[in-house]
Amino acid sequence: MGFGEIDQKAINTIRLLAVDATFTSNSGHPGAPMGMAPVAHVLWNNFMKFNPKNPKWLNRDRFVLSNGHGCMLQYALLHLFGYDLSLDDLKAFRSVDSKTPGHPEAHDTPGIEVTTGPLGQGVSNAVGLAIAQAHTAATFNKPDFTLVDNYTYCFLGDGCLMEGVSSEASSLAGHLQLGNLICVYDDNNITIDGDTNCAFTEDVSKRYEAYGWQVLTVEKGDTDLAAMQKAFEEAKAEKNKPTIINLKTTIGYGSLQQGTHGVHGSPLKKDDIKQLKEKFGFNPEESFVVPKEVSELYGKHASEGAAAEEEWNKLFASYAEKFPKEHADLSRRLKGDLPEGWEKALPVYTPADPAVASRKLSETVLSKIIDAVPELMGGSADLTGSNLTRWKQAVDFQPKSTGLGDYSGRYIRYGVREHAMGAIMNGLAAYGTVIPYGGTFLNFVSYAAGAVRLSSLSQIRCIWVATHDSIGLGEDGPTHQPIETLAHLRALPNNMVWRPADGNETSAAYYVAMTSKHTPSVLALSRQNLPQLEGSTIEKAIKGGYVLHEVEKADVTLVSTGSEVCICVDAAKYLKEKHNVNARIVSMPCFEVFDTQSKEYRLSVLPDGIPSLSVEVMSTMGWERYTHEQFGLNRFGASGAYKDVYNKFEFTPEGISKRAVATIDFWKDVPNVRSPLNRAFQQII
Amino acid sequence: MGFGEIDQKAINTIRLLAVDATFTSNSGHPGAPMGMAPVAHVLWNNFMKFNPKNPKWLNRDRFVLSNGHGCMLQYALLHLFGYDLSLDDLKAFRSVDSKTPGHPEAHDTPGIEVTTGPLGQGVSNAVGLAIAQAHTAATFNKPDFTLVDNYTYCFLGDGCLMEGVSSEASSLAGHLQLGNLICVYDDNNITIDGDTNCAFTEDVSKRYEAYGWQVLTVEKGDTDLAAMQKAFEEAKAEKNKPTIINLKTTIGYGSLQQGTHGVHGSPLKKDDIKQLKEKFGFNPEESFVVPKEVSELYGKHASEGAAAEEEWNKLFASYAEKFPKEHADLSRRLKGDLPEGWEKALPVYTPADPAVASRKLSETVLSKIIDAVPELMGGSADLTGSNLTRWKQAVDFQPKSTGLGDYSGRYIRYGVREHAMGAIMNGLAAYGTVIPYGGTFLNFVSYAAGAVRLSSLSQIRCIWVATHDSIGLGEDGPTHQPIETLAHLRALPNNMVWRPADGNETSAAYYVAMTSKHTPSVLALSRQNLPQLEGSTIEKAIKGGYVLHEVEKADVTLVSTGSEVCICVDAAKYLKEKHNVNARIVSMPCFEVFDTQSKEYRLSVLPDGIPSLSVEVMSTMGWERYTHEQFGLNRFGASGAYKDVYNKFEFTPEGISKRAVATIDFWKDVPNVRSPLNRAFQQII
Ligand SMILES: [Ca+2]
Ligand SMILES: [Ca+2]
Repeated sequence: MGFGEIDQKAINTIRLLAVDATFTSNSGHPGAPMGMAPVAHVLWNNFMKFNPKNPKWLNRDRFVLSNGHGCMLQYALLHLFGYDLSLDDLKAFRSVDSKTPGHPEAHDTPGIEVTTGPLGQGVSNAVGLAIAQAHTAATFNKPDFTLVDNYTYCFLGDGCLMEGVSSEASSLAGHLQLGNLICVYDDNNITIDGDTNCAFTEDVSKRYEAYGWQVLTVEKGDTDLAAMQKAFEEAKAEKNKPTIINLKTTIGYGSLQQGTHGVHGSPLKKDDIKQLKEKFGFNPEESFVVPKEVSELYGKHASEGAAAEEEWNKLFASYAEKFPKEHADLSRRLKGDLPEGWEKALPVYTPADPAVASRKLSETVLSKIIDAVPELMGGSADLTGSNLTRWKQAVDFQPKSTGLGDYSGRYIRYGVREHAMGAIMNGLAAYGTVIPYGGTFLNFVSYAAGAVRLSSLSQIRCIWVATHDSIGLGEDGPTHQPIETLAHLRALPNNMVWRPADGNETSAAYYVAMTSKHTPSVLALSRQNLPQLEGSTIEKAIKGGYVLHEVEKADVTLVSTGSEVCICVDAAKYLKEKHNVNARIVSMPCFEVFDTQSKEYRLSVLPDGIPSLSVEVMSTMGWERYTHEQFGLNRFGASGAYKDVYNKFEFTPEGISKRAVATIDFWKDVPNVRSPLNRAFQQII
Repeated sequence: MGFGEIDQKAINTIRLLAVDATFTSNSGHPGAPMGMAPVAHVLWNNFMKFNPKNPKWLNRDRFVLSNGHGCMLQYALLHLFGYDLSLDDLKAFRSVDSKTPGHPEAHDTPGIEVTTGPLGQGVSNAVGLAIAQAHTAATFNKPDFTLVDNYTYCFLGDGCLMEGVSSEASSLAGHLQLGNLICVYDDNNITIDGDTNCAFTEDVSKRYEAYGWQVLTVEKGDTDLAAMQKAFEEAKAEKNKPTIINLKTTIGYGSLQQGTHGVHGSPLKKDDIKQLKEKFGFNPEESFVVPKEVSELYGKHASEGAAAEEEWNKLFASYAEKFPKEHADLSRRLKGDLPEGWEKALPVYTPADPAVASRKLSETVLSKIIDAVPELMGGSADLTGSNLTRWKQAVDFQPKSTGLGDYSGRYIRYGVREHAMGAIMNGLAAYGTVIPYGGTFLNFVSYAAGAVRLSSLSQIRCIWVATHDSIGLGEDGPTHQPIETLAHLRALPNNMVWRPADGNETSAAYYVAMTSKHTPSVLALSRQNLPQLEGSTIEKAIKGGYVLHEVEKADVTLVSTGSEVCICVDAAKYLKEKHNVNARIVSMPCFEVFDTQSKEYRLSVLPDGIPSLSVEVMSTMGWERYTHEQFGLNRFGASGAYKDVYNKFEFTPEGISKRAVATIDFWKDVPNVRSPLNRAFQQII
C-alpha cells in the first residue's frame, strides 16, 4: 500500500484539531498528538477494525492510549471516523460536563475502551484486554467460526515505561505469549522534566526482549508511513509474542518548539499555530477544520468496519444454530447479566456449622459458583495457597507451550505483581466477556491503589479477594497488618468494601459484588477461624448492615465487622453477666451498601436513644459516621500469635465490655441520644 | 582466600538457627535462610565492614534483606557476629514484643537498617542508601580523608524482582551509575505459587543489563564459596555500575523438601530437622547451638570491624582539625539535629502580600531554607515544573559523565517513578546524613502507598511535596483529582498530613515536618492561588488547628483546610450579611498535630455549645471526629476550569452558607451541644 498526499492531509488534520482544541481550552497536551498523528493514521485507517456506529461490537480491535494526556489525539480520531463525538464536543475539550475530559474516561465518551491518564495504567489494561481476547477466543471460537480474533493496540510514552506497573504487566504479557497485543512506544526523548537523558537512559528495546517481546524499531516516526505499515504487519504476523514498536518521533512535530518539553503540556502560542497551519496548507484564519477528502477517506474505512460487523453478525447468527449453548452464553455475557439462578449455588450456613476462616469461606463460594458463572476468571498475586483463590478443577490460563495450562484456562498466575493485577483486571472487565477477581493480602491491595482507583472511576466490576485482613494474621507482623487500608478503600467513591463475619455474610458479599455491574468490590477476609453466627442470613447481610442480635431495653449497640463480630457476641454475654448491661449487636459488613438503604431501615439498625460503640481492629476513621464511640487501632500492630496480638490490644470480650460501659456512662446524661445517621443535610455523593 | 570446614560449619550454624527458630515459633520462612546462608557467610565474614558494638557507625557497610520474610537469616547473623541480639531473642522469634518480629523492623532490632518484608521495598531502599553514600562522599570526603566509602549490599528474591517498585528503582540506579550498590539475587526458581515457570520466565540478567547494571552469575550458589568470593570482588571493582549477582541456589538446602515451595513459608517437620542436623554433624537432640569455633571466627571479624571503626574515629578526629566546618556539619547531621536558627529562614506573610498557590509558597520555603539546611535533598517524579520542587541554584545529583550534574548535587531527577521515589526516600533517610523530600501530584502519592506506609512504620523523616491537591487542579479531571487520598493518609498511623491555607501555614507545615525526627509528612498543596489570610501565623498553625477568626455569640464554627479556608472567610461574611449569622472560622492544617495538643486547647478551638461544619473538597471521611456536620465531595470530580469545577460542586460562599444554615437549624433544639472532641474513652493511639 502506498501513501500519498491525502494521508499527509489526514495526519495534519488530526494534528491541527489537537492544536485548536488545546488552544481553545487554554489547557492540555498538544505535543503527543502532533508527534503520534502519523502512526495513529496508519494504524486506524489501515489496520484497525471497528464500527463507529456500534462502539461495543465484540470483535472490534481495541485501542488504548496509555499516555492519556494525549487524549486530543484519540478524540480527534473518534470524531473523524464518525463516532458520536461532534466538533462541538472537541471545542468543549476540558470543560465541565463535556464528553471530552482532560484524560480519556471510558464511561464518558463513546469509543474510549479504558480510562487512562495515570501513567502506566493503560498498557497494563491492554494486557488485560489481550488476555480476555485470547481467553474468549479459546472458549468460543470453533472450526469455521472465528468469533473473536481482534487485536489490542496500545500507544504509550516514556512515562508509562518508567512506571513499575507497566513493568509488571509487560513481564507477565511476555510470559503469557500474548501475540494479540501490539504496543507503540512514542520514543521522543522528552518528559516533563526535559530530556529523557536526565532520568531514563535504560535500553528499552533490550528490556522488552528480556520480557520475551518482539521488538521492532521505526527510525523515522514522523514521516516514514511505509515503515510503520510494515511494522504493524510484522507485529500481526508474530503470533506468540507481544510486540512493541519503538517509534522515534518528534514531540510537537511542526511547532516552532518541536522536540522540546515546551510543547508537552501547554497549548501552542498563536503565532506558532499560524505558521503551523500555513506549513500544513491550512487556512490560518480557520479553526477545527476537517477537509472533505479526509472525512471521505475515514468515512470509507468506517463503512468497511460497519460492513465487517454486518458480516460478523451473520456469522454469529449461524453460530447460534450450530452452537446454541455457547451462543446463549456469550450473548448473555455481553449484556453483563449473570446466568439465571446462579445465586442458588451460594452456600448457606447455620450456627451448627464449624468455625472457618473467611478466606476459606470465600474459597467455598468460589468453588460452588465457578461452574454456574463461566465468565468468572480468577487469580492471585503469588499467594494462591494463602488467598485460597483457586478451585480444585481449575485450569491455568497459560500458553500451551508451557505445559501448565491453556488459554481456555480461567485461573491466572499473576506473580508478585499486585499493581499489574489490578490494572489487568480493569482490562479484563473492559473486554466485556469476563468478570475478574484477584487475590492478595489486604495490606498489599495498597500496592495497587492506582489501579483500584481507576476500577472505581471507570465503573468496573472486579473483585479483590483480600485475605489476612487485620492484625489477626498474627506472626507476619506490622509490615503485613493493615491499619489504614479499609479507611482508604471506604473513602474511595464507587467502591464496595466487604468484611464478612461468617459464612452467610461471605455469601452475601459475593452476591452483591457479582450483581453490581458498575462497582468494584474489595472482600476483606480473615486468616483465622470464625464461628457461624446465630442471627446472620444472606438476606440480612446483603443490606450492608443489620441487627444480628436484638435485646429489650438495650443500653448500648455494639457495631462491628468481620472477625470482631463474634467477639462482640461474647462481649454482650459478658456485659449481661458482669454488668447487667443489655447490648444489641449490629453487624455492618459493608458501609457503602448500608448507606444505600432507606433512612427508615438504617435507623432501625442504628436507632436514636441508644449510644453505640464500633469495634474493628484497625483505624477508627470513618466509624464516627455510624457510631457514637469507636474502639479500634490507630497505631501499627504487632508480630505474634493471633490470640496474643488480640489480647495485647484488648480486642477481647473484657476489653470491649470495658469500653461499652464507658460509652454508656458517657452518654447517660444526654437526653434523646441522637443516632449519628441523622444529618443536617445530605452529602454530595 | 581458601574456604574450609569451618566455613561450612558456620554456614550450617546459620541454617540450623533459622530452622530451630521457625520450628520453635511454629511460624516463619526457613527456606530462604537455608538457601542463602553460604552467600551470607561469604559476604558478612569476608567483605562486610561493621562494628556490632556500634550499629550506627557511619561508614559501615549497609546490608538490606529485601526478601524480608527470610529474616531469620539476618537475625542469626546479627546474633552470631555479636550484635545486641541474644539466643533468647532468637527463641522469641515472632512473639509479641520480641526484638525478632516476623519481618525485619529497623526500629526494633539493632543492626537492621531498613524495615522490609513488603516485596520490592528493600532493594529500592538500598538504592536510596547508595545514593546517600555517594552524595555524602562527594560532600565530605577530602584528599586523604575518605570518610565514607561504604557499600550497600542487598539480598533479594524472585518476588522483589517481580514488583514494579524494584523495576523503577533499578532503572534509576543504572542511570545513576551507582557502583557502590551490590545486589544478590537468590535465583531459586521457587515462589509461593510454586515454580517460577508459572509466572516469571523473563530473562532477569538481560533486563538488568538493559538497566545498565553489571550482571554476574554464580552457578553453584549452594556450595561454590570461591565463586561467590570472586563475584563480590568483581562487583566491588566495578565503580560505575551497580552489580547484581545472579546466584543459583536451592531453597531449603539440606531439607528433605529442598528445592520446593514446601520449605518457603512453613517450619520443617521434626524428622526433617533430625536428618538435617545429623547430615550437618550437629547433635539432633540439641537446638539453637552455636559451635565455639563459629563464635570465634565471627568474633574475629567483629573485632576487625571494631578496629576499623577505631581507625575511622581517629581519621574523623583529625578531619575535625583540618575541616572543622565540615566536621561540625556532619556530626550535627548524624545526631538528626537541624542547624541552629535554620527556622529564621522561613518566610512570614501578612494579608497585604499577594495571593499565591501553596505549591509556589512551598517553592519559596525550599528556596529560603535550602542553604540553611544542607542535608535537605529534594526531587520530583518528573513533575519539577509543576511541583516547584527545585530551587534556582540547584545542582542535580547525576553521574559526572552525563554532564548534567554530579554526586554532590542535591536535586534528584526520579523520573516517572513515584513508588521508587518513596522507597528511595526511605533509604536516603536511613543512611543518616540526609533529609529527603520528593514531589508529585497528591493523587499519585497513592502509587507509592507501599513505601509511604513503611516511612510511617519505620519512623522516617521524609517529606512529600504533594501538589495539585484537589479538584482545584481543574482541567486534568477526575483521573488526577484526589478524593480519598487525604482520608487514606490521615488514617495511616505516624504520618502527618498538612494542607496549608496560605504562606504562614506553609511555613508552619515545613517547620513541623523538618523538626519531627521520627515522622514522615505529606504536604498537600494547591495548584490555584490562595490569599494570605488575616489571622494566620506560623505560631498558631504549628498547633495543627487554630481559631483563624473569632466572633462573639457564634452560631456556627466553620472548620476547613487549605484552599477552602479562604472561601470560608467569604462565607462568614455572606452569612453575616444575608442571614445575620455569626460564624467562627477554624483552620485545621494538620489533624495529627492538632490531636497532640492539650484537651483544653483543643476545646478552645472546637468548643462545646456551637455546632460545627467542616469544609474540604474531598472525602468527608474522618471529619466526623472534629465536626458535627461535613461538607465535602464523596464522589469523583470533574474536568474543567478550576472555578467552574468549584461552582459545580457548590464550594462557594453561597454553597457553604446554605449548609451552615442547615447545620445551625439542625442543632438548634439540642441543649448543650457537645464538641465531638469529647469522647467516652481514649483511643488506642
Ligand atoms: Ca516522552
Ligand atoms: Ca524465589
